Amino acid sequence: MTDERSETVLRALRRTRQIRRFTDQPVDEAALQSILEVARWTGSSMNSQPWTFIVLRDEEARRRIGESTRYARHVGGAPTAIAIVMPGKDPETDAYDEGRVAERIMIAASALDLGAGIGWVEGEEHATVDELLGVTPPALMRTIVAIGHPTEEALRPRSGPGTGRKPLSEFVRER
Amino acid sequence: MTDERSETVLRALRRTRQIRRFTDQPVDEAALQSILEVARWTGSSMNSQPWTFIVLRDEEARRRIGESTRYARHVGGAPTAIAIVMPGKDPETDAYDEGRVAERIMIAASALDLGAGIGWVEGEEHATVDELLGVTPPALMRTIVAIGHPTEEALRPRSGPGTGRKPLSEFVRER
Repeated sequence: MTDERSETVLRALRRTRQIRRFTDQPVDEAALQSILEVARWTGSSMNSQPWTFIVLRDEEARRRIGESTRYARHVGGAPTAIAIVMPGKDPETDAYDEGRVAERIMIAASALDLGAGIGWVEGEEHATVDELLGVTPPALMRTIVAIGHPTEEALRPRSGPGTGRKPLSEFVRER
Repeated sequence: MTDERSETVLRALRRTRQIRRFTDQPVDEAALQSILEVARWTGSSMNSQPWTFIVLRDEEARRRIGESTRYARHVGGAPTAIAIVMPGKDPETDAYDEGRVAERIMIAASALDLGAGIGWVEGEEHATVDELLGVTPPALMRTIVAIGHPTEEALRPRSGPGTGRKPLSEFVRER
């Protein structure tokens, strides 16, 4: 890759942020397919590709998920979302692979000038959301990534809790 | 972003692969710092940034890790590696955030024309590797990402088990 291309990718990685506020503009179908294609190539333990994705096209379903959850409320205001369903057999392996694919979806959306925000379903919320999406045990549907065009406010540089990052010197050591 | 820049990023994402074979060429210090900077901006649960990174500059330490592990053997043949240390308090949250940051390191390395390969430490291997790196419970050091210049063979398109990906139609549904 040329230095310029490398820097384009590194910049895209550094600037990818959790986005929770979206405009009403729909997400272009080609963009959605590009994001899914990136997700498809995510690495996973033993290349098991253990996930199923549910594209949440139904506004009513997104609204109900937003109302039924604490950490996926922003899904209710997004023009689309991707739910990630894992096999639910090995919690730690699931979580690891799930984190990898969620991160890729975030970065791909950002590269397309969209915003994405990871949402989580937890505890008793699973009953409602699982039924809504037709997910049955042992399958685990924990992550829902909301995707849309970020509002101007959502893109504005923020400060305060939950926005900054520690300097490298605080968490890098050498051996 | 221009369409061309978007495509540069999406292509980088799609082509990032697990690399386990490296040449003897060292990893440029600026490249290593760029990778750490990308890792620094990874999102995490409640923005807790729960990780510590250990840059494995010591060849002997890498060699011993390679010899002592089943799924991190390739660390022994890499010119550098980054070990990810998690707090070890909540296994699933740790695994999720760890997967996110490991994936970013992979993509950043690929963007710099380097190759990276996630390695795992498991079971009884922890005793040896933890002691070597000075990791003490409850901290969990499970992921070591080997980084280097890929051999030509490692970059060649492969087929067979562990290389392909399912078509989207097999794991995407709609709601």
